[in-house]
Amino acid sequence: MATLPRPTCGEMDGPVHLYPIRVYYEETDAGRMVYHGNYLKFAERARTEMMRVVGLDHIDMIETHGLVFAVHSADVKYLKQAKLDDELLVQTHVQALGGASMTMRQKINRIGVSGLEDAIADLTLKIAIVDEAGRPKRLPGDLSATLKRLRDEKG
Amino acid sequence: MATLPRPTCGEMDGPVHLYPIRVYYEETDAGRMVYHGNYLKFAERARTEMMRVVGLDHIDMIETHGLVFAVHSADVKYLKQAKLDDELLVQTHVQALGGASMTMRQKINRIGVSGLEDAIADLTLKIAIVDEAGRPKRLPGDLSATLKRLRDEKG
Amino acid sequence: MATLPRPTCGEMDGPVHLYPIRVYYEETDAGRMVYHGNYLKFAERARTEMMRVVGLDHIDMIETHGLVFAVHSADVKYLKQAKLDDELLVQTHVQALGGASMTMRQKINRIGVSGLEDAIADLTLKIAIVDEAGRPKRLPGDLSATLKRLRDEKG
Amino acid sequence: MATLPRPTCGEMDGPVHLYPIRVYYEETDAGRMVYHGNYLKFAERARTEMMRVVGLDHIDMIETHGLVFAVHSADVKYLKQAKLDDELLVQTHVQALGGASMTMRQKINRIGVSGLEDAIADLTLKIAIVDEAGRPKRLPGDLSATLKRLRDEKG
Repeated sequence: MATLPRPTCGEMDGPVHLYPIRVYYEETDAGRMVYHGNYLKFAERARTEMMRVVGLDHIDMIETHGLVFAVHSADVKYLKQAKLDDELLVQTHVQALGGASMTMRQKINRIGVSGLEDAIADLTLKIAIVDEAGRPKRLPGDLSATLKRLRDEKG
Repeated sequence: MATLPRPTCGEMDGPVHLYPIRVYYEETDAGRMVYHGNYLKFAERARTEMMRVVGLDHIDMIETHGLVFAVHSADVKYLKQAKLDDELLVQTHVQALGGASMTMRQKINRIGVSGLEDAIADLTLKIAIVDEAGRPKRLPGDLSATLKRLRDEKG
Repeated sequence: MATLPRPTCGEMDGPVHLYPIRVYYEETDAGRMVYHGNYLKFAERARTEMMRVVGLDHIDMIETHGLVFAVHSADVKYLKQAKLDDELLVQTHVQALGGASMTMRQKINRIGVSGLEDAIADLTLKIAIVDEAGRPKRLPGDLSATLKRLRDEKG
Repeated sequence: MATLPRPTCGEMDGPVHLYPIRVYYEETDAGRMVYHGNYLKFAERARTEMMRVVGLDHIDMIETHGLVFAVHSADVKYLKQAKLDDELLVQTHVQALGGASMTMRQKINRIGVSGLEDAIADLTLKIAIVDEAGRPKRLPGDLSATLKRLRDEKG
C-alpha cells in the first residue's frame, strides 16, 4: 500500500471538464436502467470536481468564502437510458455567468470500446451563488476570472 | 393490530392529485436542506399514486398492458428550500396528452399550521409511454379517457 | 382542499410502533427488488415517526435539547426481497436502554390482502444519544421515562 | 479528448482490494455527515470493483452464468463520521467462502495527507450466490478458485 489509490477529479479538455462515472446497482431501478433522478447526482459530482480542478472545493468555499452553490433550475433531457455497469462520461461547460449566478451545460454519454457512444442525457443547470443565509453573493474575483475564461474559450 | 396502517395514495381534489410527504434525514444534505435531486423522487411518488388513484398501478401496467412510463424531460424550478421534518404537499395535474406521451405539472409546497405555505418547487415532466423494449405505445383506452377528463376539468 | 392530506406518523400498538411504507421505483434496483441499503432508510423513517408519536421530533431535539441520534451499529438480516409497489410495515420496539444509548429492534414485513405476510428484514440498531459535537448525552427525563415504559411493556 | 478518463476499478494489494471514494453532497445528510445507510452503497461499489478486478462483472455474471449476488446479512459498525469532500478508502477482503455463499469484511477509512487516517466504518457482509429465481448456486470453478486463493493469502 505504498501509494493509495485516490478518487478522480476528472480533467479539463480545453474549456470542458471530463468526469467518468461507473453505474452501480444503487443508481438503477426496477426498470433495469439508471433511475431518472440520479442523473442530477452524476451532474453534481462532475460540477464539484470541475470546481475542484479550477481551484475551489466545497469546504474551502464554505469555510473561507462563506459561499454555497444553490441550484436555481434544472432542465434535463433524457436521450437514451444507461444501465448497470455502464461507463459514462460527464462533460461540463460554463455556458453563462452572471453577477451571482452561472449556467452550466452538462452532457452525459456512454463510453464504448472506441470512445464516446450514445448520448444519454443533456442537462442545463442555473446555479445561484449565495451565502449560508441564502442571500446572493459575488464569486471571489479569481474564481470569477477563471470561469469567464472557460466560458469564452473555444472547445 | 386489528387494522394495519396502510401507506397513503393521496387523494384527488377535482383534477389535481394531492400527495403528502414528510422530509426525512435520507433526503437532506450537508447544506441542511433537501438535496435538489430528490424533488424528482417526490414527484415520481406522487405521479405513481395519482395513477393508482385513477386506476393503474405499475405492476398492473407492466404485467397486464406491457407498458412503462419513461421520463423524456424534466424541467425543475427551485423556489424555496425544504428542510428536515417539513411536511410537503405535491399537487399533480395533467397538463397535456399526446398519443404516446403526457405532460405533468407538479407543484410542491410546504404545509404549515394554517394550510399551504411556501412554494418549494415547480416541475414539468414530459413522460413517454413505451413498451418494455422502449417503443412508443398508446395508453389503454379507459386510462386515456380518464386522463383526458382530468386534463380538461377545471381545478 | 378543505383539509389537506398529511403524512402519516404511524401508530402505537402497545409498545410497538407500526409504520407503513410503499415501495417506489427510487428504492428498487436492477435486480427488480428493493436495494439492500434502503432498508436502513425505511427503518430510520419508522424510528423518526416513533419518536414523534412519543413526543419528540428532530427539530425539537436539536433546537430545544441539543441532542442528535447517531447510529452506532446496525445488524440487518435480509429474509425475503420486497419489490416495486409492495406495501411494507415496519414494527419498531425499544429493546434496551442505556444512559446515553438505546437499542431498537425493527421488523419489516410485507402487508398482504389478509394482513401481515412475508418477513422481509429484521434489524437491530444501537443508537447513541450525543450532542452536536458528538459527545454522549443523557435523554431528557420525560423521554427516558417514556422509552423505559415502552421497553418494559408486554407486546 | 485523445484518451478519455475512465472510472477506477481500484486495485489489489495482496489479498485486499482497495477502492477510493469521494464524498459528495448526495451522500451527506442534515447532520452534515455521510448518511449512515450510504456506507452500504460504498461497500457494494467496492465489492463490485473487486469482482471486476478478479474477473467477473455483473452483466457477465447474469448473462453468462445466470448468477446474482444477494446480500444475506450486513453487520455495520460506525466508528467515526465522514463528511462532505472527504476521500475514503474501502478495503475489501474475502473472510470466508461457502458452497453458495461468501463473507466479505470491508473497512472504510479516511485518506489523509499522510496516508490512511480515521477508521470510519467496519462492515461484515454475508452474500448468497443465487440464480435469478433466488435459488442457491455454486460459483463458477475459476472464480471460486480465485476467491479461495484470496481468502488464504496473507495480507
